[in-house]
Amino acid sequence: MSSKFGEKIQITIFGQSHSEAIGVVIDGLPAGEAIDLERVQAFLERRAPGRADYATPRKEGDQAKILSGLFEGKTCGAPLCAIIENTNTRSKDYERNIPRPGHADFTAWEKYAGANDYRGGGHFSGRLTAPLCFAGAVCLQILERQGIHVGAHIASIGEVKDELFDEVELSETMLHQAAAHPFPTLSETAGEAMRQVIAQARMEQDSVGGVVEGAVIGLPAGLGEPMFDGVESRLGALLFAIPAVKGVEFGAGFGVAQMRGSENNDPYYYDKAGQVRTRTNHHGGALGGITSGMPLLTRLAFKPTPSISQPQESIIFGEKRDTELCVHGRHDPCILPRAVPVVEAALAIGVLDMLCIAGKYKKV
Amino acid sequence: MSSKFGEKIQITIFGQSHSEAIGVVIDGLPAGEAIDLERVQAFLERRAPGRADYATPRKEGDQAKILSGLFEGKTCGAPLCAIIENTNTRSKDYERNIPRPGHADFTAWEKYAGANDYRGGGHFSGRLTAPLCFAGAVCLQILERQGIHVGAHIASIGEVKDELFDEVELSETMLHQAAAHPFPTLSETAGEAMRQVIAQARMEQDSVGGVVEGAVIGLPAGLGEPMFDGVESRLGALLFAIPAVKGVEFGAGFGVAQMRGSENNDPYYYDKAGQVRTRTNHHGGALGGITSGMPLLTRLAFKPTPSISQPQESIIFGEKRDTELCVHGRHDPCILPRAVPVVEAALAIGVLDMLCIAGKYKKV
Amino acid sequence: MSSKFGEKIQITIFGQSHSEAIGVVIDGLPAGEAIDLERVQAFLERRAPGRADYATPRKEGDQAKILSGLFEGKTCGAPLCAIIENTNTRSKDYERNIPRPGHADFTAWEKYAGANDYRGGGHFSGRLTAPLCFAGAVCLQILERQGIHVGAHIASIGEVKDELFDEVELSETMLHQAAAHPFPTLSETAGEAMRQVIAQARMEQDSVGGVVEGAVIGLPAGLGEPMFDGVESRLGALLFAIPAVKGVEFGAGFGVAQMRGSENNDPYYYDKAGQVRTRTNHHGGALGGITSGMPLLTRLAFKPTPSISQPQESIIFGEKRDTELCVHGRHDPCILPRAVPVVEAALAIGVLDMLCIAGKYKKV
Amino acid sequence: MSSKFGEKIQITIFGQSHSEAIGVVIDGLPAGEAIDLERVQAFLERRAPGRADYATPRKEGDQAKILSGLFEGKTCGAPLCAIIENTNTRSKDYERNIPRPGHADFTAWEKYAGANDYRGGGHFSGRLTAPLCFAGAVCLQILERQGIHVGAHIASIGEVKDELFDEVELSETMLHQAAAHPFPTLSETAGEAMRQVIAQARMEQDSVGGVVEGAVIGLPAGLGEPMFDGVESRLGALLFAIPAVKGVEFGAGFGVAQMRGSENNDPYYYDKAGQVRTRTNHHGGALGGITSGMPLLTRLAFKPTPSISQPQESIIFGEKRDTELCVHGRHDPCILPRAVPVVEAALAIGVLDMLCIAGKYKKV
Repeated sequence: MSSKFGEKIQITIFGQSHSEAIGVVIDGLPAGEAIDLERVQAFLERRAPGRADYATPRKEGDQAKILSGLFEGKTCGAPLCAIIENTNTRSKDYERNIPRPGHADFTAWEKYAGANDYRGGGHFSGRLTAPLCFAGAVCLQILERQGIHVGAHIASIGEVKDELFDEVELSETMLHQAAAHPFPTLSETAGEAMRQVIAQARMEQDSVGGVVEGAVIGLPAGLGEPMFDGVESRLGALLFAIPAVKGVEFGAGFGVAQMRGSENNDPYYYDKAGQVRTRTNHHGGALGGITSGMPLLTRLAFKPTPSISQPQESIIFGEKRDTELCVHGRHDPCILPRAVPVVEAALAIGVLDMLCIAGKYKKV
Repeated sequence: MSSKFGEKIQITIFGQSHSEAIGVVIDGLPAGEAIDLERVQAFLERRAPGRADYATPRKEGDQAKILSGLFEGKTCGAPLCAIIENTNTRSKDYERNIPRPGHADFTAWEKYAGANDYRGGGHFSGRLTAPLCFAGAVCLQILERQGIHVGAHIASIGEVKDELFDEVELSETMLHQAAAHPFPTLSETAGEAMRQVIAQARMEQDSVGGVVEGAVIGLPAGLGEPMFDGVESRLGALLFAIPAVKGVEFGAGFGVAQMRGSENNDPYYYDKAGQVRTRTNHHGGALGGITSGMPLLTRLAFKPTPSISQPQESIIFGEKRDTELCVHGRHDPCILPRAVPVVEAALAIGVLDMLCIAGKYKKV
Repeated sequence: MSSKFGEKIQITIFGQSHSEAIGVVIDGLPAGEAIDLERVQAFLERRAPGRADYATPRKEGDQAKILSGLFEGKTCGAPLCAIIENTNTRSKDYERNIPRPGHADFTAWEKYAGANDYRGGGHFSGRLTAPLCFAGAVCLQILERQGIHVGAHIASIGEVKDELFDEVELSETMLHQAAAHPFPTLSETAGEAMRQVIAQARMEQDSVGGVVEGAVIGLPAGLGEPMFDGVESRLGALLFAIPAVKGVEFGAGFGVAQMRGSENNDPYYYDKAGQVRTRTNHHGGALGGITSGMPLLTRLAFKPTPSISQPQESIIFGEKRDTELCVHGRHDPCILPRAVPVVEAALAIGVLDMLCIAGKYKKV
Repeated sequence: MSSKFGEKIQITIFGQSHSEAIGVVIDGLPAGEAIDLERVQAFLERRAPGRADYATPRKEGDQAKILSGLFEGKTCGAPLCAIIENTNTRSKDYERNIPRPGHADFTAWEKYAGANDYRGGGHFSGRLTAPLCFAGAVCLQILERQGIHVGAHIASIGEVKDELFDEVELSETMLHQAAAHPFPTLSETAGEAMRQVIAQARMEQDSVGGVVEGAVIGLPAGLGEPMFDGVESRLGALLFAIPAVKGVEFGAGFGVAQMRGSENNDPYYYDKAGQVRTRTNHHGGALGGITSGMPLLTRLAFKPTPSISQPQESIIFGEKRDTELCVHGRHDPCILPRAVPVVEAALAIGVLDMLCIAGKYKKV
């Protein structure tokens, strides 16, 4: 329960925003896999704060330190533990007894009867996505050697929309295109317009939400288990665990509600290589919860950052009275750019787990 | 893995569309809970086929038979097993080597190397939602005695929209309003329009999709576990396990992507009873994955029934060539009316499980 | 939790001694495996009551009925459910308010606050080993095709001891030798002496305990996971789940406590086939919780049947006073002969699960 | 799978003998529990090496460092992570290609295809019991406030036997008696004789095995779940995870095999306080896998330390030839004295987990 995910690849995330350190234990990784720690670190940088004008100015190295699980540069079968120290914390920015609207302050206080570490959101802080990214970066390297690739980009911020991934002809180049930019979109024009939207929100002491699209290519058919352990159930659980996500869809997603069966059904055919494919990909790579071999496509709705400098209505615990709260501290007016690697990480973890469950991981 | 769900309340569903029987084992139910089997049966009838013009004419009693777990009308701590016999099967309606587009035929064949029971979709058949409904009906009765109520209705079919649940003042009456109608909507006018849309699709040998909205009221604050076991992760996994669901959202859902933080954040206040509430409910009852005590709100996108009588492009396994398929047999042109109790059942199972996990179930 | 076992091969057992039926769901079986149901039934007969003078005269066919999971005689990827109807129950033999010493009546009553089905021990009845045997019989057939064989015999009853399996040169013949006898021992002389001990106990309205030895050969090296999921942990949990088992040991077991390291350590060598083997097998086939490829050896202590006709001290629930109880009904004066197939079944389930977890199951 | 244990209290242990650090994540601890870290450290010292003549001279502080999960001295609902740095490692003492008999070197090499960290046994090292003890020490403090106490002592080494715990009248004083001594036995005379046995073995470059007895008092009736999650299954799995354990028994254990039912059955009576008790305690505190409220009693057989300085037969990986190995390095000639706190720790973890599963933990 709680801060664990996975069956064969098991992720345990620990830490609070202002504890000594945060970290992750990854158990069940196949042994003998070389892990390039510089690439892992570069991946962490994509999520790290303080990179640009649209991100929070709290600067932290997010430098991962390996405690166990690697031997001579390779996974050795033992659980891999990595930690990131919390060096740049300003606990006094946080009120103990006044929950910030839109955050987990109130629900955590209720759940733990006030014993929770409230500083910076404690264990519920978005900072905990850093160890998630570490785990994802490790899984991504293992997946690559299996011919499986994961990518994501900002699909929209406010009203501004990016192009979407091609649902049937999704190349590795397109998949990784956004990651190369500091502001991860497919279309630079869209990216520029989004940055304007964010700048505008920041000026108005406000924040904005958006959508991230993620995809996986190279998946063999046959991953996922029936009923409660289908691809969408398993990845859905993982994606909803990313802070601020309020909606998840696969393939045509909510669009299916307005479609006819004759339109939504994806016709089968054999391609020139004798591979079964579908002409469209409204199913988004999974039917009956089992992968079809077509690109896996998902979109996630992220809510606007709850931390805004405007005064907001709140309450005072214990005093049983209402109050007004101004959230100080350092916040992103839009979490989307930093959310893109988090989505890639989550997909990588979930996909590697399913690959191992299905017994389709091939020893390197 | 696979056909199991839950941690404290564990559901194991078995059966294929054309096997001897289908059924469910429910383990971990609190002991001493009276179960009214007539009400359970009435709930099953809401999902059963053949009730109206918009549903498949395959008529089955869906009569549940209890094999274990009840003693003198009450749960006795032992796993509860119920089965429903498959009496009305027409296996010859199904082609073994030609996968129906939009169904799991192809992916199941890939996963099990052709050993899967293809008749009627086998274990992937929508018929397996009958035992899910049985389990849900049992959980609903237990939840009621805890003051927790679950309801759902068709939110849209094609372009036609029903009213939505009131997000802050959701009464038990409104919650159960749709269930009282053979066509479960809040607005009768909307229901009438939807039936037209379905009739039209049927005439055109086609099918239509839609959205179901579900809600839970009376939840205590503090359910759900941090990170990977939050309310949205846990319920999301369960809801995505319902056949044909391609999108799940909570609270404002995908709508958050276009909101500002100042709009999306739900302000806190103490109500007259000294209870913490929020003035709006964009969070849909969960913050940081933990329930807030506000109504839990979710919406699910259902794809149009893949079985349509029109000819469709497909392939022939083994022969490695393309073909055309006409799906015969008995199908719903729209699954939504029968999906409503399934959503209620899934929510009930998930919520009772979380209630027990959080140790907030109170002995009756 | 509770009536489930396994990770890849998941067993869910349901039913009470006097419920409509008892049964098992086996999820995760590899697809495409032919199951010979006659052999399964023959295996069930080995456990069934009423076969001989040393067993309880309650006669039941223990006829298993398959509800799902097989298609054209083979596993099809869907959960396999089998039930056995309870036809020959005599509920009036059981007192509701007076717990039988040595049975779970008192602890079940405490756990379920009196809501438990007390008739015949309810879910705690030894009768629930019938579905366990069904599951084991299925797994045994699958294991055979992987070259893995499981066997067991009565190692002792009271003071009478059977021979033990050869710890290094354990052949398939020796493994299955006991199963061929109605009274499953390696030495017929020992078997004869044991029957005398049982007859004597029966005459004295008493019962006797004993030890079963089980073994598995043909296991590949490398099964089991480190620390909490080692072979002994996993099989130990399963073996302690067999009713009446109070002790479990592997290899030299409790004997190691009196050994020197120089004696207990098993020296390695390459055999003529270039296979690593050990000259002795005090480790019993597992080191560090991981299989070595040597025979897996275990012994289990079974307590004497608690149901005896002599008057015993007990209490009356609710009345808070002591009383004397005479247990009527039909009982085995010694459970050991019927326990032998149960041990084989449990080992088969546990071993097939570990084989699949380790990814060493090979498609047939 | 693998390095995790527990359902409500989840323990994840990481690290190798010679990795940067070893540690543990404890998830699911009740929030608001004060943890006295000095007492935790004192508990760790009981396991730490280098305390006496009978223990390995490798001296390490085993100083635990808390990374997360505590806030203002109390558990805060977030996973508690503690690490112990590995400072005193001598990797060159270990041969890569020659497995030490009795250790996991060979099986780990087989499992991970040679990628395992072989230094000091890697993840299979007895050193990994240090984080287990940390977790146990935390659980012990929480259990104390629930009125539950855990203790253990050396029951035998070689042929020398200690007294055993009183099975029915086990006081807190007797329970903790052994822990107060550097050599943890109930009888000082027996302890002295055991030290002689160990000294003799050391002189002969050999090692000896023994038995540890553990007990838990203050347990409420009703812990444990039926069938596969009974007390003996759950604790058995945990106890078999302690390195070197080859046998586990509860209550009369293997002794039941030679008993009659009339002797083994424990008669019930109401004591003066109106509490149900048994006159004897052959069941060892659990019937049908459920606690009875009587003391929980278990005994574990530990094999002699496999590391001995005498030359032993082994093999050379890759070269496929036999060789002779002399194990250098620092070893305990008898692990039992250090195993006592490990058994206490394991019992504490298992019991707290079961207490929380059964919903019988009471908020402090």
